[in-house]
Amino acid sequence: MSVASAVREDRLWQRHADMAKLGGTPKGGVNRQALSAEDAAARNLLAGWATARGFAIFTDAIGNLFVRRDGTDAKALPVLSGSHMDSQPTGGRFDGMYGVLAAFEALEALEDAGVKTRRPVIAVAWTNEEGSRFQPGAMGSAVFAGHNDLHAMLAVRDWKGVVLKDALAETLKAAPAPLRKGKPGFALDGYVEVHIEQGPRLENEHKTIGVVTAIQGSRRYIVEVTGDEAHAGTTPRAARKDAFHSALRIAAAMYEATTDAEDTLRFTIGRVDVSPGSPNTVPGKAVFTIDMRHPAEAVLEVHEAKLAAIVAAGAAPCIAAIERVTAVAPTNFDPKVIDLVRAKANALKLANMDMPSGAGHDAMHIAKLCPTGMIFVPCERGVSHNESENATPSDLAAGARVLAEVLADLANR
Amino acid sequence: MSVASAVREDRLWQRHADMAKLGGTPKGGVNRQALSAEDAAARNLLAGWATARGFAIFTDAIGNLFVRRDGTDAKALPVLSGSHMDSQPTGGRFDGMYGVLAAFEALEALEDAGVKTRRPVIAVAWTNEEGSRFQPGAMGSAVFAGHNDLHAMLAVRDWKGVVLKDALAETLKAAPAPLRKGKPGFALDGYVEVHIEQGPRLENEHKTIGVVTAIQGSRRYIVEVTGDEAHAGTTPRAARKDAFHSALRIAAAMYEATTDAEDTLRFTIGRVDVSPGSPNTVPGKAVFTIDMRHPAEAVLEVHEAKLAAIVAAGAAPCIAAIERVTAVAPTNFDPKVIDLVRAKANALKLANMDMPSGAGHDAMHIAKLCPTGMIFVPCERGVSHNESENATPSDLAAGARVLAEVLADLANR
Repeated sequence: MSVASAVREDRLWQRHADMAKLGGTPKGGVNRQALSAEDAAARNLLAGWATARGFAIFTDAIGNLFVRRDGTDAKALPVLSGSHMDSQPTGGRFDGMYGVLAAFEALEALEDAGVKTRRPVIAVAWTNEEGSRFQPGAMGSAVFAGHNDLHAMLAVRDWKGVVLKDALAETLKAAPAPLRKGKPGFALDGYVEVHIEQGPRLENEHKTIGVVTAIQGSRRYIVEVTGDEAHAGTTPRAARKDAFHSALRIAAAMYEATTDAEDTLRFTIGRVDVSPGSPNTVPGKAVFTIDMRHPAEAVLEVHEAKLAAIVAAGAAPCIAAIERVTAVAPTNFDPKVIDLVRAKANALKLANMDMPSGAGHDAMHIAKLCPTGMIFVPCERGVSHNESENATPSDLAAGARVLAEVLADLANR
Repeated sequence: MSVASAVREDRLWQRHADMAKLGGTPKGGVNRQALSAEDAAARNLLAGWATARGFAIFTDAIGNLFVRRDGTDAKALPVLSGSHMDSQPTGGRFDGMYGVLAAFEALEALEDAGVKTRRPVIAVAWTNEEGSRFQPGAMGSAVFAGHNDLHAMLAVRDWKGVVLKDALAETLKAAPAPLRKGKPGFALDGYVEVHIEQGPRLENEHKTIGVVTAIQGSRRYIVEVTGDEAHAGTTPRAARKDAFHSALRIAAAMYEATTDAEDTLRFTIGRVDVSPGSPNTVPGKAVFTIDMRHPAEAVLEVHEAKLAAIVAAGAAPCIAAIERVTAVAPTNFDPKVIDLVRAKANALKLANMDMPSGAGHDAMHIAKLCPTGMIFVPCERGVSHNESENATPSDLAAGARVLAEVLADLANR
């Protein structure tokens, strides 16, 4: 019996259904924010399943929850897989949770298939990936990787003023697990995360598996256009410095300049503020945000220069400025892990395609520590961060099969 | 001595300075809202000047204040001229007040020049033109013309809950004038209003007098574009229904379609709301307002059809709708009054041009009652509804000279 064939679609689907009850919303989504009572309930449910299968559980100082299946070599570095169990306030049943349950399913499949691995295989549920209650998101993996300071994170407060340290203590009291002493983080041989795509590409191209090559880099900008307020009835166009009119010309040129044949570059104007916002006053100011993403840093660099040139050229008769507010470099996954994922998907005869991840994931922090990769499965219409988020049992099982094969391979290297 | 030469620039300027003290602001503007203590003070000052010159004063049930210089024919219908003394909360010294003081200066000039007229000439200060404390604006002239109901207006409340009737009683108690009994309004032979332009055209074209041919019609619309919210990182452009992107294409086509060689059509997008307004979410909705004005109803009609066609053609892949929320027909002034204003300006060798008014004025109501016209003078950089509003003593005097000549002519017909 292969590890892949030991993956049970019905069991994995039922575990999603069981988890979906914890924080379940009337519209079929979940509200299971980080370190809430619902998060604690999910931890307890996972820990109960793990204990029933004889797997060890432990947690760390930021609350990351680990489920360990031992290997044959006590000194070998472990292979890790997982994602997160917290959700957006009006989130879906699969975002994050699928990655945890697929990793746990892989552990069970290894067990059911009677496969021994040299290295331990560990499933993980990272604390607070969503960042909707406590900022920043991807907190557990960032602390694990040493990118965020543990004590700074423990001091963060939610909007009601609750300190994260207290919410974490409360959560671990309600969902106890042995604590791994010291700073979070330990040496790893590899990390693989599975996730729903959160975009429409796999569905549109009729693929079951996304072989994730990278998490695209992202840059955010603010464009501010300053003109002059004027009377809408009395001021001829030639005498106007209409901030919205200039902003619109700038934005139109930007949409044009960020059109690529492959449709890989992501360019979004998400927030637009026009002031004073009176129907009969020519706008004196227009401000808009830009979110631009691409897997290649060089492409972001080239387009940043284009945006700056457009702002400089398109402002007249107003004045305009563009400011970069954040830049996150792309994460390129390990070629050997990418090749392994693709090879396992092919071996399982699962239609697959290479693709970058459009969204950020815990894997971007862990990729700095060890060879890392990701596996995507389709989600309905690409909808995520939404209570109507959906995926099929067979796609979820397919992703878990690829993961189980990949982990079995990595854990025997 | 001609009537025009009896107009005294220094006296007119001093009266502006005296009035500017009532509600004067540190930045040099005025805050003299309708039926406030400052409004009462302005009424008293005008009434005092009138009484000192031997003119009769009276008021009506909506608080319009009249200053009457008798004619030789007791049965002849009067000629009326004036504007308003109330201001925006951060208004200028000339908006409205100039029209009242110019009319009063014309009465004084007729007196000083010893010119007898067959008809009475009456200066008027209309109540609540600005509409910033009590809505709607142009209230006194609208009630006078029978366009607004007296009792409905008396029942209006300001934002503090003060009923207009009480504020009016308070004002007339502080600034008493004999009350003309009955419903406001009486038969008129003609009406001429002078005003600062509130736009930049006269200044830009180096003209002293604007011969106002019309008050342009205005129409307001709301355009609503509905798309789909989507993840900014994961959703390819081909799969997006980006409401702002569609709104931008629609708006750009509208700016293009409303460009006219004469720069007479006014097209303004003043308010823009994009939701959900998150930098990393593709906008699912975009709503914007349109303010469109032109002196010719037919031009508004043609362009309304163009706007509708643009919305229909430009919405894809979103859906969009345009709704007309208000329509005010243009006011065309009386050709004989227009010709008379132009002739008097030419006779006084004052550089002048025909032009429509971009803003609304009390004259639009009175034009329904009798032959009506308006006279504009330049204001600095076209700025109005602003404490920095400014005009020169000589331009103000020039407008008053044209007015005095026009009134003398009309009053002897």
